[in-house]
Amino acid sequence: MTNKNDLEISCALPIGQYDKIVMAHGGGGRLMQQLIDNIMLSAFGDSSLKEKNDSAVLPEQSGRLAFTTDSYVVNPLFFPGGDIGKMAVCGTLNDLAMSGAKPLYLSCGFILEEGFAIESLQKIVQSMAQQAKAAGVEIVTGDTKVVEKGKGDGIYINTSGIGVLETTLNISPSRIKTGDVVLINGDIGRHGISIMAEREGFHLEEPLESDCADVSGLVADMLEAGLDIHCMRDLTRGGLATALIEISVAANKHIKLQEADIAIPKTVRSVCELLGLDPYYVANEGRFITILPAHQAEQALAVMQAHPLGKNAAIIAQVENAESGLLSIKNKIGTTRILQLLSGTQLPRIC
Amino acid sequence: MTNKNDLEISCALPIGQYDKIVMAHGGGGRLMQQLIDNIMLSAFGDSSLKEKNDSAVLPEQSGRLAFTTDSYVVNPLFFPGGDIGKMAVCGTLNDLAMSGAKPLYLSCGFILEEGFAIESLQKIVQSMAQQAKAAGVEIVTGDTKVVEKGKGDGIYINTSGIGVLETTLNISPSRIKTGDVVLINGDIGRHGISIMAEREGFHLEEPLESDCADVSGLVADMLEAGLDIHCMRDLTRGGLATALIEISVAANKHIKLQEADIAIPKTVRSVCELLGLDPYYVANEGRFITILPAHQAEQALAVMQAHPLGKNAAIIAQVENAESGLLSIKNKIGTTRILQLLSGTQLPRIC
Repeated sequence: MTNKNDLEISCALPIGQYDKIVMAHGGGGRLMQQLIDNIMLSAFGDSSLKEKNDSAVLPEQSGRLAFTTDSYVVNPLFFPGGDIGKMAVCGTLNDLAMSGAKPLYLSCGFILEEGFAIESLQKIVQSMAQQAKAAGVEIVTGDTKVVEKGKGDGIYINTSGIGVLETTLNISPSRIKTGDVVLINGDIGRHGISIMAEREGFHLEEPLESDCADVSGLVADMLEAGLDIHCMRDLTRGGLATALIEISVAANKHIKLQEADIAIPKTVRSVCELLGLDPYYVANEGRFITILPAHQAEQALAVMQAHPLGKNAAIIAQVENAESGLLSIKNKIGTTRILQLLSGTQLPRIC
Repeated sequence: MTNKNDLEISCALPIGQYDKIVMAHGGGGRLMQQLIDNIMLSAFGDSSLKEKNDSAVLPEQSGRLAFTTDSYVVNPLFFPGGDIGKMAVCGTLNDLAMSGAKPLYLSCGFILEEGFAIESLQKIVQSMAQQAKAAGVEIVTGDTKVVEKGKGDGIYINTSGIGVLETTLNISPSRIKTGDVVLINGDIGRHGISIMAEREGFHLEEPLESDCADVSGLVADMLEAGLDIHCMRDLTRGGLATALIEISVAANKHIKLQEADIAIPKTVRSVCELLGLDPYYVANEGRFITILPAHQAEQALAVMQAHPLGKNAAIIAQVENAESGLLSIKNKIGTTRILQLLSGTQLPRIC
């Protein structure tokens, strides 16, 4: 018998003896401590998490703060191009970036369903850790709850985030002006359609991956270039159309999209046609729009295209005067249609 | 037909026509906007929530920050002395207070189950708003997701919080010294047993309410009095025993409880005896321990007893030297037993 085995036996109920989550993993006792020590702390590494206090204490920050929260309930948990863990970290980093903030700290709250495979949890946590490390942010505080089988769906994750605004820019729809242009950092529809295809077991001719990515580095480049960004928004639930409709209403402007300038992957287009979906409303997880003065458009485009997550950036719309918010799109034969807020969603649980 | 009705009809799908959550309430479209406008924003009032940006932008803070997160999955959602909303706000305020921070901002993330009664959601959100207002904190950012029936349990809430440390104190188990004393702000076991009684339909002779409360005001009084607090911890999952075992291990000290000094309500004691539960491990939601030098014990007690949430405060333990962490309790006839970490929990989903 090796030393390693001795150690395991001396510890009454090592996590290694469980391959599924049991209710006691959420009970605050020894099993929960082992779960947190062996799965969460071993992945998230050195940080104030290790102190296991009720709160993380963080150094003073100079500058305004950004604060955001998102719960992730995506189904399936693993999909081409990512998993719920990668998404939970990227999504919250992106929300911070959209306000012009540099992401610094994340929290994570897990709601685990009894019976969830510990191997899957491990993969998801490692994916979160990897993504946070790549972005240079720390996961500093967390929480784990367990609910009975049939009261959850494997795992739900909440990530909240704190960032600091190193810019004095006020990034808000209220700053949008007539004559501004709208840029996007790439094509649309990859996330929603890849989730949908995975869920429904579609066999796609050309493989499609989610665009799930942390765009905060790209946004940092744009801020560093001194662009006078008026508004940014990531294009998650509800896609490009929903984000721009909301912005047009908040700004009281008419935003005019040009269909010819918006890239839609062939597979996204085919699946949308097959199912009667409108790709402008399909969710993305690594795409965002930026609205800024027209005279900075070319400079912005150059900065974006120099970054891997912006290499297919394009100018897709102009902002015009309006009595009330409006989003329209002109197609390739010159006809214009109005895009309206859908009642609900085309595809549930894509984030 | 009144004007009010006209207005309702002009809005295609007013929230008033739904009495239950449907999947579309989480879809990012019009129904979700109505839910957020009519339920969340109308309760949470003026704050950066109204701007509906991806992140809230907050003013610069001078001082170290505290950051914490908790998900709430309590069952039942409404119980004597509180509900999941009150608990979600109080719990996160308490976690901030335990690090010595003054709570400032909260986020809230809702995971709603399809079919959940909108009236219940409204009550819970109003309860959150009321509790936040009473504490002088703002709910500045939020998120709402909807999962299919059978994939949740009505509502799960995540609240994350940011506070600022106006003190230079370092509140941490590492500061605990031999000779320190342990104080508690009241009796134990009310929350866990009242949840349990509600869940199991027990008819208690004397009604019992959860101790669910925001103790941040009491902690502020203690900090203001200049007490040299070494450690604080709220006594939630796992109760008094689990918190003190964890602290004894982190500090490498022997913490010696005196049973005679710990108040346990008669009803808590009876239910525990009936079911074979140990009240020292039962969850509380408005109780915390404070560890500080013995010479400040009387001053601390006076400050605590002057506050409504500390009027039954007591000194319950002494800290002694030890080779490794240990928690013991001496009973009324002078016998000492060691309290050990339970494997899981006595009562699941009490928070």
